[in-house]
Amino acid sequence: MAGGPTSSTVPSIPLLKDELDIVIPTIRNLDFLEMWRPFFQPYHLIIVQDGDPSKTIKVPEGFDYELYNRNDINRILGPKASCISFKDSACRCFGYMVSKKKYIYTIDDDCFVAKDPSGKQINALEQHIKNLLSRATPFFFNTLYDPYREGADFVRGYPFSLREGAQTAVSHGLWLNIPDYDAPTQLVKPLERNTRYVDAVLTIPKGTLFPMCGMNLAFNRELIGPAMYFGLMGDGQPIGRYDDMWAGWCTKVICDHLGLGVKTGLPYIWHSKASNPFVNLKKEYNGIFWQEELIPFFQSATLTKECTTVQKCYIELSKQVREKLGKVDPYFTKLADAMVTWIEAWDELNPSESAKLAAANGPAKAK
Amino acid sequence: MAGGPTSSTVPSIPLLKDELDIVIPTIRNLDFLEMWRPFFQPYHLIIVQDGDPSKTIKVPEGFDYELYNRNDINRILGPKASCISFKDSACRCFGYMVSKKKYIYTIDDDCFVAKDPSGKQINALEQHIKNLLSRATPFFFNTLYDPYREGADFVRGYPFSLREGAQTAVSHGLWLNIPDYDAPTQLVKPLERNTRYVDAVLTIPKGTLFPMCGMNLAFNRELIGPAMYFGLMGDGQPIGRYDDMWAGWCTKVICDHLGLGVKTGLPYIWHSKASNPFVNLKKEYNGIFWQEELIPFFQSATLTKECTTVQKCYIELSKQVREKLGKVDPYFTKLADAMVTWIEAWDELNPSESAKLAAANGPAKAK
Repeated sequence: MAGGPTSSTVPSIPLLKDELDIVIPTIRNLDFLEMWRPFFQPYHLIIVQDGDPSKTIKVPEGFDYELYNRNDINRILGPKASCISFKDSACRCFGYMVSKKKYIYTIDDDCFVAKDPSGKQINALEQHIKNLLSRATPFFFNTLYDPYREGADFVRGYPFSLREGAQTAVSHGLWLNIPDYDAPTQLVKPLERNTRYVDAVLTIPKGTLFPMCGMNLAFNRELIGPAMYFGLMGDGQPIGRYDDMWAGWCTKVICDHLGLGVKTGLPYIWHSKASNPFVNLKKEYNGIFWQEELIPFFQSATLTKECTTVQKCYIELSKQVREKLGKVDPYFTKLADAMVTWIEAWDELNPSESAKLAAANGPAKAK
Repeated sequence: MAGGPTSSTVPSIPLLKDELDIVIPTIRNLDFLEMWRPFFQPYHLIIVQDGDPSKTIKVPEGFDYELYNRNDINRILGPKASCISFKDSACRCFGYMVSKKKYIYTIDDDCFVAKDPSGKQINALEQHIKNLLSRATPFFFNTLYDPYREGADFVRGYPFSLREGAQTAVSHGLWLNIPDYDAPTQLVKPLERNTRYVDAVLTIPKGTLFPMCGMNLAFNRELIGPAMYFGLMGDGQPIGRYDDMWAGWCTKVICDHLGLGVKTGLPYIWHSKASNPFVNLKKEYNGIFWQEELIPFFQSATLTKECTTVQKCYIELSKQVREKLGKVDPYFTKLADAMVTWIEAWDELNPSESAKLAAANGPAKAK
């Protein structure tokens, strides 16, 4: 099990202290932060309170944070608040939108500090930052994993023209103890625990989709933020537990189009307890059917040359969702609408960013 | 460093004892087999002697083997022997052709038994067999690596229709100590050693190419054998050290077309010493240029529906090599010819296999 915090593993100067926000969706007091104190305290937290807004969430002393409940979200976004899910951790993406930082790390409140095989506490955030600051290799596979890591390199047969790699947009971390299984697998294997520490970070190749879990995830908000929409889940929706998957599929298609890298592997966190598989099955069962159509849809989705920004890519993808997935279920028409609303809300809250993009694209294309 | 053999790690009944050949290309006495004795002795070895055929290669006592030198190759293949390289370890592919077994493991004679982090000797062959006998997941990425391994499974968001995976055709193992670097990287990092044991096996996704190293490699000969041609290298050729790369690119394109899986990762062997980087540079420099054209060629290569067998795929690929790479250098025209000769020689030495295929394809297509 994960132990208590020690200061020995904390870097003396926290990396990207003023350029990264930690986004935490929650419905309870954030006692779990005590264990993360040595690693998270230098950073700013954005807490997105889900469920009853009249409830008070306690945050341990000494943390620098802003907290948004449903009333805040409604007040800030007005009618556009409809795109933010309620009673589902998908609400976390509101935090991505209000952040003004270049990088985001998001973590669930049932995730604790894990230990590496030597018994040392893993500074998950530091590893994510390393992943994001070093380049990725989406265009060709390197058999010795991350070639930019100390003690590693590109192997024989790796084309030299591809060794520059690509900018890293996403760093997907993993989980020791409770693996991220779906309800059917949870039901079948209630006792399975992930005990294998795989000491690797690898780039998911261009053209390959993956199941992105939102439990322990970091990304470059400037590069890919507007694609990190966690969809319509939970209250009033026919589906749950596909928020991060949806974001992952959209993000990967857009990263592939824009030539950006997505990494998975280290760091691990300690996932403390499995959610209820019966409750999960109820949330998931539509998704289990629908993903059979979603995967071929995303595998064959292509974006035009005109899609030069994440926003443009995302709006184009929303059109394809409406057109092709609307037939699968009316839910996807609603989701396509929400995708558009999400981008409108993003641009509204991030006007300087939009202005920068408009300027870069020339006055004719300015909003 | 790798230690002496112990019997504790040897499985009581060697897996696939009568269905697997170990192919070793060499120019020297095979003392390295002493360390492998507990693992290899139950199996049949095919030794392909490179260079001077008048030299006698000593094989430690107790091993069951057949040995072919250049005179044997010339006698057996006649004029078709021209497709087998001389003075280059690419000659190993002759061993794949003369084997009558379902599985092949090939290893270099400077590779020794490695140890896992617990200090236990790694039975590389056993791990390769496990990799080949379990299925692969080329159609979607699983973030917890091999989902068929004990203690692992498919994660949430992995489509159920894809969990059957695909048959595994290739198992690509890795190397501790001396990594498989090209000459420029060897020159720049003479002291770099691979000390990281990554406890994972993963499937290289469909549509993704990789640099396949022939040092520690296993494959299902029935599924993919005729694609494992190591090309024209060494004596009289303008290139060396691209034999395994060539085989890997062709094999991956054909596996993708036929819906077969390619795995990489475990097992590790201990690679004892780096080859001379100056000699390597001389062999590689054409390849370093050419691979910049080869990768886009293989990335965009597609095979028609009519290519229903490995042989047909390979002949089709040889046509595309002639047509598209012949312009890069006349060498590729010669190589395209050799690819055809290789398939002719394969079918000649494996008539029952060809007959089976012909029968399966109906009498009209029989040779």
